[in-house]
Amino acid sequence: MPRVLIVTAPGFEDVELLYPYWRLVEEGFEVVIAAPQRGKVKGKVGYEVEAHISFDEVKPEEFDALVLPGGRGPERARLHPRAKEIVKHFVDAGKPIAAICHGPQLLISARAVKGRRLTSYPGIRDDIEVAGGIWVDEPVVVDGNLVTARIPPDMPFWMREFIRILRQRHPKP
Amino acid sequence: MPRVLIVTAPGFEDVELLYPYWRLVEEGFEVVIAAPQRGKVKGKVGYEVEAHISFDEVKPEEFDALVLPGGRGPERARLHPRAKEIVKHFVDAGKPIAAICHGPQLLISARAVKGRRLTSYPGIRDDIEVAGGIWVDEPVVVDGNLVTARIPPDMPFWMREFIRILRQRHPKP
Repeated sequence: MPRVLIVTAPGFEDVELLYPYWRLVEEGFEVVIAAPQRGKVKGKVGYEVEAHISFDEVKPEEFDALVLPGGRGPERARLHPRAKEIVKHFVDAGKPIAAICHGPQLLISARAVKGRRLTSYPGIRDDIEVAGGIWVDEPVVVDGNLVTARIPPDMPFWMREFIRILRQRHPKP
Repeated sequence: MPRVLIVTAPGFEDVELLYPYWRLVEEGFEVVIAAPQRGKVKGKVGYEVEAHISFDEVKPEEFDALVLPGGRGPERARLHPRAKEIVKHFVDAGKPIAAICHGPQLLISARAVKGRRLTSYPGIRDDIEVAGGIWVDEPVVVDGNLVTARIPPDMPFWMREFIRILRQRHPKP
């Protein structure tokens, strides 16, 4: 059973965390939420989720894939050097990464967008291009192990591609 | 491709509408949101969705399944006799129905719970029992065409069962 890590922080875009979280649980995967500290984390619209572990407790080598929700979480998460190291592990290992909205800010922090085709919330398009990424205005962009989307209505197409890639590596038993 | 109708009203529990909506879109189904009026409808936490049609415009015989999200929407929807007629169509035709949280209030209004095994938000358990339903405290309860759940964290299991039942009737092409 694949183990998926979600990296977030207070102010995350609520449904951009909740949709992939429940969707991957529905699929039968083990999903772990990491934040600066363990315990309750509040989204920008008002939902609260429980972070199972803190960034310091994450052992990224124990996970098969990474999800980076958007909102204001990524800007806060990138203040923690450990969050960048975690993201870098998935990048270097070529493990599947799903990022949406402002989630790719953590990919920029991990120096992971150069030469990659990806999308994001339009507000950070310039940051991605300055970092050497090829920004595309599509609901979902797949470049190897990297699956990116722009906004919440893209999520059905984003998760469909991410789960397809995960299933290629971890077929249904 | 199955066509699924979501019946709601202002004050719906946001993720109880958004999760099934996106999940069924991801599955490739056509999903239509109906509310007292066409246009923007606001959830109780703060998300806004677009109702594609009004209750008066719904032709229930054109749909294969029904979703009833919770929150304060069902109490408002049941004030509209047309909403009850719509629900009754799915009940009488034995088409798949997914209801969560306060969604089963519309099943009570349609006189559809007598003798059925179902769950709901615990606050309306007594109403269900008075109406002759058999209330069960489980994340998801399947009784024939009826798939019910209690609260948002039940949604992965709720949608897994609902989609399984829909796929039995409408196999993947």
